[in-house]
Amino acid sequence: MNILLVYAHPEPRSLNGSLKDFAVQRLQRGGHVVQVSDLYAMQWKAALDAEDNTALQPGVRLDVSLNSRQAFENGTQSADIAREQEKLRWADAVILQFPLWWFSLPAILKGWVERVYAYGLAYGVGEHSDTHWGDRYGEGRFAGKRAMLVVTTGGWESHYGPRGINGPINDILFPIQHGILFYPGFDVLPPHVIYRTSKIDEVGFAQVCEALGQRLDALGTTAPIPFRKQNAGDYEIPALTLRPEIEPGREGLGIHLLRG
Amino acid sequence: MNILLVYAHPEPRSLNGSLKDFAVQRLQRGGHVVQVSDLYAMQWKAALDAEDNTALQPGVRLDVSLNSRQAFENGTQSADIAREQEKLRWADAVILQFPLWWFSLPAILKGWVERVYAYGLAYGVGEHSDTHWGDRYGEGRFAGKRAMLVVTTGGWESHYGPRGINGPINDILFPIQHGILFYPGFDVLPPHVIYRTSKIDEVGFAQVCEALGQRLDALGTTAPIPFRKQNAGDYEIPALTLRPEIEPGREGLGIHLLRG
Repeated sequence: MNILLVYAHPEPRSLNGSLKDFAVQRLQRGGHVVQVSDLYAMQWKAALDAEDNTALQPGVRLDVSLNSRQAFENGTQSADIAREQEKLRWADAVILQFPLWWFSLPAILKGWVERVYAYGLAYGVGEHSDTHWGDRYGEGRFAGKRAMLVVTTGGWESHYGPRGINGPINDILFPIQHGILFYPGFDVLPPHVIYRTSKIDEVGFAQVCEALGQRLDALGTTAPIPFRKQNAGDYEIPALTLRPEIEPGREGLGIHLLRG
Repeated sequence: MNILLVYAHPEPRSLNGSLKDFAVQRLQRGGHVVQVSDLYAMQWKAALDAEDNTALQPGVRLDVSLNSRQAFENGTQSADIAREQEKLRWADAVILQFPLWWFSLPAILKGWVERVYAYGLAYGVGEHSDTHWGDRYGEGRFAGKRAMLVVTTGGWESHYGPRGINGPINDILFPIQHGILFYPGFDVLPPHVIYRTSKIDEVGFAQVCEALGQRLDALGTTAPIPFRKQNAGDYEIPALTLRPEIEPGREGLGIHLLRG
């Protein structure tokens, strides 16, 4: 497969840096072709702004969606954005690797999403009708591609458990896995989370690599998280609420998963 | 009260820009003193990196937490960070105002959190023992201060409802409200969310301002979200899981709220 690894950590000699190097080697040995977007090394511009459309005239009021749409359609996007989109088109699978900072993506990686996810590419795709509300949540330009998060955190696994104080890890990651990856069509694999990173010694590092390696070996075959597709009949359109006869009386994030 | 409004939108002539101006005026008329951190206007540096500690020697391996701790303790933080921390100390209430981009904070605002929330200020505070696991989740340096999100989104309210496809708005905002605001001690007020922003005409704008104005008028008196405090007996320490006799058998984000 063609694999894009989007990686966000400021220190190459960190645990994250070592895991990134390990992942690239492991994937290459598995016969895959790998490209890495090392956002800190690239000095990726994090903040979306008017200059992301090179054709926007000075003084014109910036409409964020419209500016993105026009730049994408007219080929006037900033070159760094266009390059990342080309990698996304090329990739069969995308891995986002990052430390969980304040329970979410590092700002530089969030800014990669905001700037690369153009209107017409990652949103604003497809028709709207009584039975179809855009190509999203299971459809979209990235349909057929796989995606997976590789996440490190200083917190303990129990802190992110079903009753842990930080919230269950899959709920904390829902805005990313469902909102950023499933939305434009990716098949989202279960995340690979490495806990309590400050306690990892040399033996621990070998174990961490082995566990990550197994996940990478299975990248092409692991079953995706069974998020419900928006336009497959489970949701009322345009309210986009789960039909009352499905998971009756239940609320929350878990109802957006098909039961096995 | 002293109120800090942290605002993230690249276009002053946007809905968000107009709402920010409205909010400042309304708060000032209410007798409050307001400071605004307009992150785009300030050209806020979004990406946390080694340079955030002006004393870090070139070539030294960057440990993110340690670097933050040393810079905070030794007074060698980058000046832009120190200025924002001073505003936080001054403030009785903090408002974060932003468009919900990809179900989370804009990158520039996430980067404000990452850089301003130093070790020793927003985390790494307090002792760890069998009954107390750091001053966090209801304790911490920002205890006694109030915080509120003001959020705009193009999506419909039903899409963010209890059974909406995007996930319930309070679950989507949990990593921010619980993880970023409650964690260092803020009393977190219910969010003020403005939906379907592309459909707001002149009449709609007046209604939106009126609704926001009422929330701002009540900033000092609105009851906070009743998140459970970490060290008040509800959680096992150090596992930090909710005790089995509380909300028995339940899982998910909602169990971290006290029932009324």
